[in-house]
Amino acid sequence: RINSDRLWDSIMEMAKIGPGVAGGNNRQTLTDADGEGRQLFKRWCEAAGLEMGLDEMGTMFARREGTDPDLPPVYVGSHLDTQPTGGKYDGVLGVLGGLEIVRSLNELGIKTKHPIVVTNWTNEEGARFAPAMMASGVFAGVLDQADVYEHVDKDGKKFGEELERIGWKGSEKVGARRIHAFFELHIEQGPILEDEGIDIGVVTHGQGLKWLQVTLTGKEAHTGSTPMPKRRNAGLGMARVIELVHEIAMDYQPDAVGAVGHMEVYPNSRNIIAGRTMFTIDIRSPEKEVLDAMDERIREGIDTICEALDIQYQIDQVGHFDPVTFDPGCVKAVRDAAERLGYTHRNIVSGAGHDACWINRVAPTAMVMCPCVDGLSHNEAEEITKEWAAAGADVLFHAVVETAEI
Amino acid sequence: RINSDRLWDSIMEMAKIGPGVAGGNNRQTLTDADGEGRQLFKRWCEAAGLEMGLDEMGTMFARREGTDPDLPPVYVGSHLDTQPTGGKYDGVLGVLGGLEIVRSLNELGIKTKHPIVVTNWTNEEGARFAPAMMASGVFAGVLDQADVYEHVDKDGKKFGEELERIGWKGSEKVGARRIHAFFELHIEQGPILEDEGIDIGVVTHGQGLKWLQVTLTGKEAHTGSTPMPKRRNAGLGMARVIELVHEIAMDYQPDAVGAVGHMEVYPNSRNIIAGRTMFTIDIRSPEKEVLDAMDERIREGIDTICEALDIQYQIDQVGHFDPVTFDPGCVKAVRDAAERLGYTHRNIVSGAGHDACWINRVAPTAMVMCPCVDGLSHNEAEEITKEWAAAGADVLFHAVVETAEI
Ligand SMILES: NC(=O)NCCC(=O)O
Ligand SMILES: NC(=O)NCCC(=O)O
Repeated sequence: RINSDRLWDSIMEMAKIGPGVAGGNNRQTLTDADGEGRQLFKRWCEAAGLEMGLDEMGTMFARREGTDPDLPPVYVGSHLDTQPTGGKYDGVLGVLGGLEIVRSLNELGIKTKHPIVVTNWTNEEGARFAPAMMASGVFAGVLDQADVYEHVDKDGKKFGEELERIGWKGSEKVGARRIHAFFELHIEQGPILEDEGIDIGVVTHGQGLKWLQVTLTGKEAHTGSTPMPKRRNAGLGMARVIELVHEIAMDYQPDAVGAVGHMEVYPNSRNIIAGRTMFTIDIRSPEKEVLDAMDERIREGIDTICEALDIQYQIDQVGHFDPVTFDPGCVKAVRDAAERLGYTHRNIVSGAGHDACWINRVAPTAMVMCPCVDGLSHNEAEEITKEWAAAGADVLFHAVVETAEI
Repeated sequence: RINSDRLWDSIMEMAKIGPGVAGGNNRQTLTDADGEGRQLFKRWCEAAGLEMGLDEMGTMFARREGTDPDLPPVYVGSHLDTQPTGGKYDGVLGVLGGLEIVRSLNELGIKTKHPIVVTNWTNEEGARFAPAMMASGVFAGVLDQADVYEHVDKDGKKFGEELERIGWKGSEKVGARRIHAFFELHIEQGPILEDEGIDIGVVTHGQGLKWLQVTLTGKEAHTGSTPMPKRRNAGLGMARVIELVHEIAMDYQPDAVGAVGHMEVYPNSRNIIAGRTMFTIDIRSPEKEVLDAMDERIREGIDTICEALDIQYQIDQVGHFDPVTFDPGCVKAVRDAAERLGYTHRNIVSGAGHDACWINRVAPTAMVMCPCVDGLSHNEAEEITKEWAAAGADVLFHAVVETAEI
């Protein structure tokens, strides 16, 4: 078993970097705080005798040598970046859980045949730069590196330039590594495990996702002196699309979710009818057919709404992944580990996207989930117990070591 | 008649200060650009032999002495501040039209018994600091000076501190002046005059207004892993309120308008269900009963919407004025002037709020309106012709001089 106190202390230590305003974290990708978090992780890795690799997307690979260095490594990790109002565990648990495995192996004097590489994937959250799971997406060959370097945040800053600025752009080509298997430990971010009192989620599938960025163009005009029939109100258009997305998601739930969390209004003045709005629709489903059907209904609906309001629209898909089926062998390793350790477990579908979803395309992959209080995540109040974290890291430990072979 | 070329040149000169991004202006109140605009106006006033007064709200009063200095002055003016994406004429025409009157009187060697004071009221737009028509509201005793000093913009900057910062906080007590009459020339900001091919709007009434700032509080949560029934989506709540406001306004139009132009979303991330939204409802009607009925229906509707979504709400009234009936004597002076000069004219109700609406409570007041292209205002593309401006300023000239007595 891993050392749960040490794991917990490390999580709390990391949480001091990029503190939020309400007990959580704001350590968004490629900010100074992200850079600081990386430094701390690097120090810890070096103290544990690991050798740090860094690729052109800024992803960190901390390697513990295997007894047979020619074997492809077993990878374990997640991400250290957070939402603007994120929790202390989303991502962090998976990276520091990986580090804890290595620390425990060191302490127990256990050597594995395959090397073990603890990984911190850059920009998992996608909050500052869309899409989410960016570096793992480039690694898996589904996103284009030159293209994502050009993606800008709200202030117009480019991903590639910010990566250089914080000093974490490596020289290693992205995706060049052989991967024997990848395991990611993550909090559930949903309520199922806690509701059912279960220790471990054995993640068999991941939901598919689409992010549709919609720009509506109407006409800026005075709220007081513009007659109602003369208005071309891009704010009203946005409101109707938000309701549409909700209704469509409700039609398909529990097999789908949908919402708009990101909205921009121009010029955003009390007495100006919005001339332009921009917002991102987030729809998800474990069924590809459902996701496609939702996408189609949304596009039709937007067309109808905009025609009625005499406004123009543009739809850009800024994020997308199909539903994922994780590797049966890796999934079995997770389930067997939970069984062996005596933890209650159940199969579960990940509601969120994870780096594991992309890596699964290029290497056998699975995930371990542990409960979180009230299913709450992407909220500074995100919380877990030390015991939940320990159970998840124990299962990760056993699955990784079994796969890396003693 | 006034000198229409000089008036037009002055407008174009002022438009160089705080240029917008699309041919209009961004000279929001108490910004550096506002300070520059004031300097230019001051220089012009001094060149015309006027004496500048400045009160504690930053309102500028440029006085041309009367032959009987003991008589209360006739005031004429409007505002030099603009929307963030404002036009070149909204407000500016009224201030520089007032200046043009004085320049013409000087040139013609005409003296009036009553002094004439050209006025630039601070923060008419209310875009940066709510409410609109702030300084005239304090002058008329309907807003509290100490209170509005504390009002903050989106960056948390205080009105009072920004007024000091730009160096335009005067020492004169606000509202201490005797006013014989006040005349304001303004573009219509609506489509009626242009549609009907009429030169001059004789403004008999002004619409009443309410600004309701609504804060909805739900719960930040993950867009992917939070089941639909568990959501407390403040973004969806906002969307429903926007639709509600529109529907209610449509029920009462053409006797009412309503929209939401200002919206804030927290934390505004693509994959976080909004935990909090804040937005301002703008409703208007020339009938007090209609305005009150809309207000009541909106409050009831918000309650119902929030209950269904399990979110909390708070409603703060951040702007309000009752419908206005302008002074019959002053209105007649405007109508007589248009008639005498041979301009086509009609009675009109102002759809927008104006400083004249507040000053009408403490002194006889009326307004002159001229057409604007397509009824468009609060848009950088706001446009008028030199002839329309000249007609408006001519009528203003005659109404003011008649009232100030030769
Ligand atoms: N796990 C997680 O929150 N990932 C961010 C991408 C997503 O929105 O699912
Ligand atoms: N005239 C004008 O645009 N005033 C601003 C206040 C309002 O919204 O009516």
